Amino acid sequence: MEHPVKAFGWAARDTTGILSPFNFSRRATGEHDVQFKILYCGICHSDLHSVKNEWGFTQYPIVPGHEIVGVVTEVGNKVEKVKVGDKVAVGCLVGSCRECDLCTKDLENYCSKSILTYGAKDVDGTTTYGGYSDIMVANEHFVVRWPENFPLDAGAPLLCAGITTYSPLKHYGLDKPGLHIGVVGLGGLGHVAVKFAKAFGSKVTVISTSSKKKKEAIEKLGADSFLVSGNEEEMQGAAGTLDGIIDTVSAVHPLVPLISLLKIDGKLIMVGAPEKPLELPVFPYLITGRKVVAGSNIGGLKETQEMIDFAAKHNILADVEIIPIDYVNTAMERLLKSDVKYRFVIDVGKTLRAE
Amino acid sequence: MEHPVKAFGWAARDTTGILSPFNFSRRATGEHDVQFKILYCGICHSDLHSVKNEWGFTQYPIVPGHEIVGVVTEVGNKVEKVKVGDKVAVGCLVGSCRECDLCTKDLENYCSKSILTYGAKDVDGTTTYGGYSDIMVANEHFVVRWPENFPLDAGAPLLCAGITTYSPLKHYGLDKPGLHIGVVGLGGLGHVAVKFAKAFGSKVTVISTSSKKKKEAIEKLGADSFLVSGNEEEMQGAAGTLDGIIDTVSAVHPLVPLISLLKIDGKLIMVGAPEKPLELPVFPYLITGRKVVAGSNIGGLKETQEMIDFAAKHNILADVEIIPIDYVNTAMERLLKSDVKYRFVIDVGKTLRAE
Repeated sequence: MEHPVKAFGWAARDTTGILSPFNFSRRATGEHDVQFKILYCGICHSDLHSVKNEWGFTQYPIVPGHEIVGVVTEVGNKVEKVKVGDKVAVGCLVGSCRECDLCTKDLENYCSKSILTYGAKDVDGTTTYGGYSDIMVANEHFVVRWPENFPLDAGAPLLCAGITTYSPLKHYGLDKPGLHIGVVGLGGLGHVAVKFAKAFGSKVTVISTSSKKKKEAIEKLGADSFLVSGNEEEMQGAAGTLDGIIDTVSAVHPLVPLISLLKIDGKLIMVGAPEKPLELPVFPYLITGRKVVAGSNIGGLKETQEMIDFAAKHNILADVEIIPIDYVNTAMERLLKSDVKYRFVIDVGKTLRAE
Repeated sequence: MEHPVKAFGWAARDTTGILSPFNFSRRATGEHDVQFKILYCGICHSDLHSVKNEWGFTQYPIVPGHEIVGVVTEVGNKVEKVKVGDKVAVGCLVGSCRECDLCTKDLENYCSKSILTYGAKDVDGTTTYGGYSDIMVANEHFVVRWPENFPLDAGAPLLCAGITTYSPLKHYGLDKPGLHIGVVGLGGLGHVAVKFAKAFGSKVTVISTSSKKKKEAIEKLGADSFLVSGNEEEMQGAAGTLDGIIDTVSAVHPLVPLISLLKIDGKLIMVGAPEKPLELPVFPYLITGRKVVAGSNIGGLKETQEMIDFAAKHNILADVEIIPIDYVNTAMERLLKSDVKYRFVIDVGKTLRAE
């Protein structure tokens, strides 16, 4: 099905995941829709999984990107949230049923009919295309207002990495001043988690497989301490000290060393997505320490707006490396090797040109 | 070390777990101590594990029993809680540090210095002996007042099975009227969990490996529905319907079918103690459904008193088979085969005679 508005982006065509220029179309701006020119789009690890079909449900061609910011070019006649010229953003979702219990509780992210920003089937049966493209059209409900004077480039990753870590800190009560929070894995999600936890008034400990990032975690990101997960003595010394942990690691990894760091009633919150089930120690830790292991998946739209406003107020931004669109395949290779501090952001506005 | 007060009970001497008459001693009643004649003692599954040293830390001889009720025979001069002639109970704990953060929050059950009622080292260096015996001496803090006119025999199992299921229902907010609660495993813990959940105003679904107990679960225990965990159609039909689950199964078992039954934000609470770690599905359930897996370990003393008072008010009792002490080895064999509905209780008062 062809839409009336010509659009241009970069798409992957097969499991090599290699992206290349792609002509497609966007729908005309509906009465509740916002059309905007994309200026920046972050590269999330999910984009990498998706272009290579590592989760098994990719439909090609796929235009990834769900950390999208831009400037409004057209609004439908019933749109109240924004006007032409406003800065806006779109994250991981562009739709949901809007009627179920979850949607009415602002938990569109858990609605069984939620529509992902790319690679999903939209209500009209067409495929959704993400932010590695020139323009976007989305229902205003799924559009976030961008705070005045808040940087667009380094702010873009908050749309996924930000809300993914902000939401569980809030939901699980890990946002109270004076808590001691652990962050496992210092990548795109982890480095933003450190910043949010610090802004909530927590003491923050980063847990990583190597000491490589120690200096930076403490001096640049503001973490209070750093643990190397393989250093038993260090880990033992910190046993029972954390109120909560945000675990951003998406590789299979042992939970016992992390659960051991928690106080009684401490919470280990998983936001990374290991491919296989992990081993859960039931009696020695979960039961004897009344510990909690739980998950969290991005956030609802109301909370995403709240997160962006909070980030702007506390000047929380991702640490980014801005790249032109034609660097995207190299960026993907480097991302696979965790060779980025800490998020690539594509300068779509200045470098994406229709061919 | 010999104490001044002669005591008599039944002890296991080796890993056969076979119990036989045993002469030992109890300490003199200290100023904060309560001495009581034991009338009934429940047989908990932990007793079976302990007499056979299945957890690896049993010191023989061991006198098991931590579901103990009786009548006060002597009190120390500073005891305020009870007087001679009062009915009292002791559960899984006879000591804790009384000073740490957890103790001051009435969570003696998570204190690192808590002292188990049997098989543990007491503050004076002696070994603690449990309720398969004629008398008990315990600090009044660890003694529970027995409600007027509340049956001692069928009430005894509440000291472990009751508090183990009551505490997580309360702590994890699963005690609100109108919730839908699942109970996995219909043994000593499970059948009491059903009764507490019903008393809290929940709809209750029992989940079991076979349909054998269906009629009884519904007609006798008051459950609203019953699922056979191996019946995929039945389980599928109930997917996403439960607010919380109390999982009492101590065998290794799959969590996915249980987590699938939970609503978004639903909580799977483990109170059974499988020997090995269980497989935890992180992405497909925990993250996408913001689900919680957590544990709980008996309860503190304040909560145990609250539980007993609640049980008395709502007439919640265990379903018990009362046995004489010399049947205890047969009872253990039957317990191993789950051949009991649902708890053996030893009539210590009438059948235990010093030899």
